[in-house]
Amino acid sequence: MPEAATTGDVSITSVQGGITAPLGFQSAALHCGIKAAPQALDLTVIAADSSSSAAGLFTTNLAQAAPVLVSKRHLRETGGVARAIVVNSGCANACTGDQGMSDAARMANEVAAALSCDPTQVLVASTGVIGVNLKMDRVSSGIRDAIAALARGKGSETARAIMTTDPFPKEYAVHVNTGRGSFTVGGTAKGSGMIEPNMATMLGFLTTDARVPPGLLDRALRESGRATFNAITVDGECSTNDSLFALASGASGVTIDEELYPALTEAFLAVSRDLALGIVRGGEGATKLISVHVRDARTGDDARQVARTIANSPLVKTAVHGADPNWGRIVAAAGRAGVTFDVQRATVHVGDVLLFENGLPHDDAAPRAAEHLKGKDIRIEVSLGTGGRGSATIWTCDLSAEYVRINGEYRT
Amino acid sequence: MPEAATTGDVSITSVQGGITAPLGFQSAALHCGIKAAPQALDLTVIAADSSSSAAGLFTTNLAQAAPVLVSKRHLRETGGVARAIVVNSGCANACTGDQGMSDAARMANEVAAALSCDPTQVLVASTGVIGVNLKMDRVSSGIRDAIAALARGKGSETARAIMTTDPFPKEYAVHVNTGRGSFTVGGTAKGSGMIEPNMATMLGFLTTDARVPPGLLDRALRESGRATFNAITVDGECSTNDSLFALASGASGVTIDEELYPALTEAFLAVSRDLALGIVRGGEGATKLISVHVRDARTGDDARQVARTIANSPLVKTAVHGADPNWGRIVAAAGRAGVTFDVQRATVHVGDVLLFENGLPHDDAAPRAAEHLKGKDIRIEVSLGTGGRGSATIWTCDLSAEYVRINGEYRT
Repeated sequence: MPEAATTGDVSITSVQGGITAPLGFQSAALHCGIKAAPQALDLTVIAADSSSSAAGLFTTNLAQAAPVLVSKRHLRETGGVARAIVVNSGCANACTGDQGMSDAARMANEVAAALSCDPTQVLVASTGVIGVNLKMDRVSSGIRDAIAALARGKGSETARAIMTTDPFPKEYAVHVNTGRGSFTVGGTAKGSGMIEPNMATMLGFLTTDARVPPGLLDRALRESGRATFNAITVDGECSTNDSLFALASGASGVTIDEELYPALTEAFLAVSRDLALGIVRGGEGATKLISVHVRDARTGDDARQVARTIANSPLVKTAVHGADPNWGRIVAAAGRAGVTFDVQRATVHVGDVLLFENGLPHDDAAPRAAEHLKGKDIRIEVSLGTGGRGSATIWTCDLSAEYVRINGEYRT
Repeated sequence: MPEAATTGDVSITSVQGGITAPLGFQSAALHCGIKAAPQALDLTVIAADSSSSAAGLFTTNLAQAAPVLVSKRHLRETGGVARAIVVNSGCANACTGDQGMSDAARMANEVAAALSCDPTQVLVASTGVIGVNLKMDRVSSGIRDAIAALARGKGSETARAIMTTDPFPKEYAVHVNTGRGSFTVGGTAKGSGMIEPNMATMLGFLTTDARVPPGLLDRALRESGRATFNAITVDGECSTNDSLFALASGASGVTIDEELYPALTEAFLAVSRDLALGIVRGGEGATKLISVHVRDARTGDDARQVARTIANSPLVKTAVHGADPNWGRIVAAAGRAGVTFDVQRATVHVGDVLLFENGLPHDDAAPRAAEHLKGKDIRIEVSLGTGGRGSATIWTCDLSAEYVRINGEYRT
């Protein structure tokens, strides 16, 4: 049974089809030869039937890969219009200098030529090993073949083609019914995979067949991204290539205005949350999903800062891995987050078990908390007790010896 | 052969004796019964023959243990005078509420009564499991026995008594010759040990037989601490109990004024650096010492921020563990540090091997860098190329599966 959520006149139901569930989109994926493994999908094109509204969110790292720089320029030049996204895995095209910039631009040019649109209407994303140039002859022939193979119903191939060492593909879609008609939102993402092993990269792509003015699309992407893709962390690392794109084809005939904006954002949130949590579950060496919820902070930013510090604490992450109800590490991580609160008024729950209040532990409750920690879905909840209403949730995974193994092996 | 350093008329030579190498100090250490292992040293007193100048640096964590709160109050009330330091290991006396405050004060009271000084002249430090109260009957009888056993030449016992899961004791001392006489500085420290396992705590104690006004002593401790104890990181965690104390007995007859202040600071730096690097080498699961040197930043603070971000990056630390010359992770960590610089102008060296410049890798040099990474002492050097002169060094260790094992085991 699909999940459904209803808010006012709006109902949201999960549907199959991922990135090509919305009307007006096709995709194709293939092995062009960037990845060494034969038949491993390493190139995909997501194309709208006609020019669509587009928006993007990018890594805040100062070191930005060529495809990030090219895609930002294209969005700036078009004011938020795109026809297609071309993505390769296996090579990040990062720290590749002028050649890299030229290669990323060429990927856009070749897709644009085949689709008969302006090159600025093509967005580019890459993930994989950094400091290595793309094998452009393979990419070019791959682009030609992919354009020829574009079809609906290939969302799951696209989801697989963007993977690096992700343990499973991530795709999700929802159908939204409103009093003014219905539309669909689909998406796919790849996460903390490493290749050979190298930079982790987060890529995410959303499509919708609603008609959305670029300004509203950008707003919906930022608002939903903040609470989902920007609220997850595997190891606190932010890569050179992180990119999140949204395309809106308008093919459903429903136009998003201020009245329908909440419905669009809710759908973006539903799809993005599913994809983002999939990234964390598939984090390197992850065995548990941890949600860190901080409340009663003076501001939302304060809450986010504390939640992020707890979520990135190696001591907290190893304790969860070992099913150790170590509230002391949680208190200490909160205390060093750079946010003002009174530890005496703070409380810590693990699952629904209160482990710390009034500056003192409830050690008698530790065995019940340990039981919770033996599960796969872990909840840590911290109240800062400031009297403020700020709250935030950050998702992360545990830290296992497997993480070290994956990231410590010699790159060959 | 002892190492010697000479600056102007000042020469510094390493000597034996640790914390009791300077004149005017005695110590004693014993097993009082806090640690479960029979005969494991868990209590020590460091006592000056008479009231001494004193200074302290403490954790910036909002969650501060009772001994930290008591010691801060004592230093404030005396204006920087102390007779003794009492330290226990095996129990951090943190998150222990009113009982913990009362126990920490009682430790000071009992030492003061035995030494016939004011309780405010006793500093207290604890390290070990948090959220558990001290067994005060054992601590009290231990304090009585320790005071009775005070003697010179027991610095190495004190060094062992403050250990938790530190793999080896850390002590160091230097003799300083100046044109105006000579004095000695000694010290001991314990590091990123866990107990049962729980909070990591850094404790450090310095003694000198120079006569130092409290204001200058505080300044020397802050200045040397910033470049040593505050420039190391094992996992970015800052505990509830971190404390660094300095006592100056004056027994050498040499008085530190502005002219001799640089000699004192240099000696503090020499002792503190040796102890701090010992903490990193003994970090949990550590197999390599990594120095991260960042230069050509706009400011020293910028350089420190970038160096700290690289030093705390799990991807960099796992790469070093695996002897992988992964300059990409170093560039990406620098790029997300929140400091402005131009990646195109940055360079990365591993050992003396240039791996990255002009935005491009030198992959031909990777095998030589990999050779360097197979050693025990790893140097990462990053120039931000801003034209500024800011520089900073942060020391850390690699991240191994053993770290996860140590910190992920269920607390019993």
